[in-house]
Amino acid sequence: MHPEPADTRTRILEAAVRVFAEKGYHETRMDDIVSASHTSKGSLYFHFPNKQEIFFGLIETFTGLLEARLKESLAAEQHGSEQVDSALTASLRLFTQYRTLAKIVLVQAVGLGAAFEARRRAINDRFSALIQGRIEKGIQDGSLPAQNAELAARAWVGALNEIVIHWIYTGVPDLETSVPEIKAFLLRSIGAGKENQ
Amino acid sequence: MHPEPADTRTRILEAAVRVFAEKGYHETRMDDIVSASHTSKGSLYFHFPNKQEIFFGLIETFTGLLEARLKESLAAEQHGSEQVDSALTASLRLFTQYRTLAKIVLVQAVGLGAAFEARRRAINDRFSALIQGRIEKGIQDGSLPAQNAELAARAWVGALNEIVIHWIYTGVPDLETSVPEIKAFLLRSIGAGKENQ
Repeated sequence: MHPEPADTRTRILEAAVRVFAEKGYHETRMDDIVSASHTSKGSLYFHFPNKQEIFFGLIETFTGLLEARLKESLAAEQHGSEQVDSALTASLRLFTQYRTLAKIVLVQAVGLGAAFEARRRAINDRFSALIQGRIEKGIQDGSLPAQNAELAARAWVGALNEIVIHWIYTGVPDLETSVPEIKAFLLRSIGAGKENQ
Repeated sequence: MHPEPADTRTRILEAAVRVFAEKGYHETRMDDIVSASHTSKGSLYFHFPNKQEIFFGLIETFTGLLEARLKESLAAEQHGSEQVDSALTASLRLFTQYRTLAKIVLVQAVGLGAAFEARRRAINDRFSALIQGRIEKGIQDGSLPAQNAELAARAWVGALNEIVIHWIYTGVPDLETSVPEIKAFLLRSIGAGKENQ
């Protein structure tokens, strides 16, 4: 029995994470992924015309997971401060759970040049827009002071990105135990009342 | 009369900015820089064994300028909030003045892969350490609340990096007129008293 196409695609992506982690993106050949995923060359090329598309598939997978967790946190009926808490906890746990994938997406990507950079900009814009919407809601309901929500959201994305990339390279700080400190920094930065910190 | 070696080096770097901006890093050949800098091939290779070293020379030039402006602001005898103001104004003005160079350093660099990424990490660490030192001083003299200064400094570097890169791509927000908003965000983030904002 042949597996469904969706399963093959997932199997290829999972194999690609292992191969990229072991050999690095540049050293990986499509044939390595054929072997590791126990699929056929034809099937691999049917799903992904080239290595870069596999990489983009991994980026989408990770970004999709992250976005789903964030939206879930933002949809919950709770106080702004608790939303930040649950969104941060869920996101940072995701990085810890998928450290290998996160490392490939954030670190190996630097060799991909302009094609990847455009993708990275688009992803940052997506997350920035999500955060901006939430800050604007806080300004409207009076729980946050008037401010440039777009600038603050972009700063959050940059700050979190830098913290996570530093963690990927060095292993510190431990992301999950740092949630309270990161949260305090972020809430202060947008002027969330002291009672929220 | 032959120019001094230091002048030749500077002339090469200035020519490289023009050539990289026009053709892009990857399309540029060493010969293009020989022509544009009105120097000899031998002289070019004496100063820079390859194109990547020229690129690293540009990164060092820009980073050096930025670091000098920051240290100058931090050395001035003034209130913490005024220091942040003058440091931000000086740094963001530098990006505006050297936009082409900043764009090459921050954007074209993405194609350089691991060699550049290590350099970028080291630069971020340097700026982060500078900021961390200043935040720690504030904690010690009581003008800032107790906090994880390293985390905050890293977050600042990430936030500013993201804001500047977005500006490089889109031209918005205007960096110099955004100083008050960026400053307010940063000061709030480290819990600088309201009177400082």
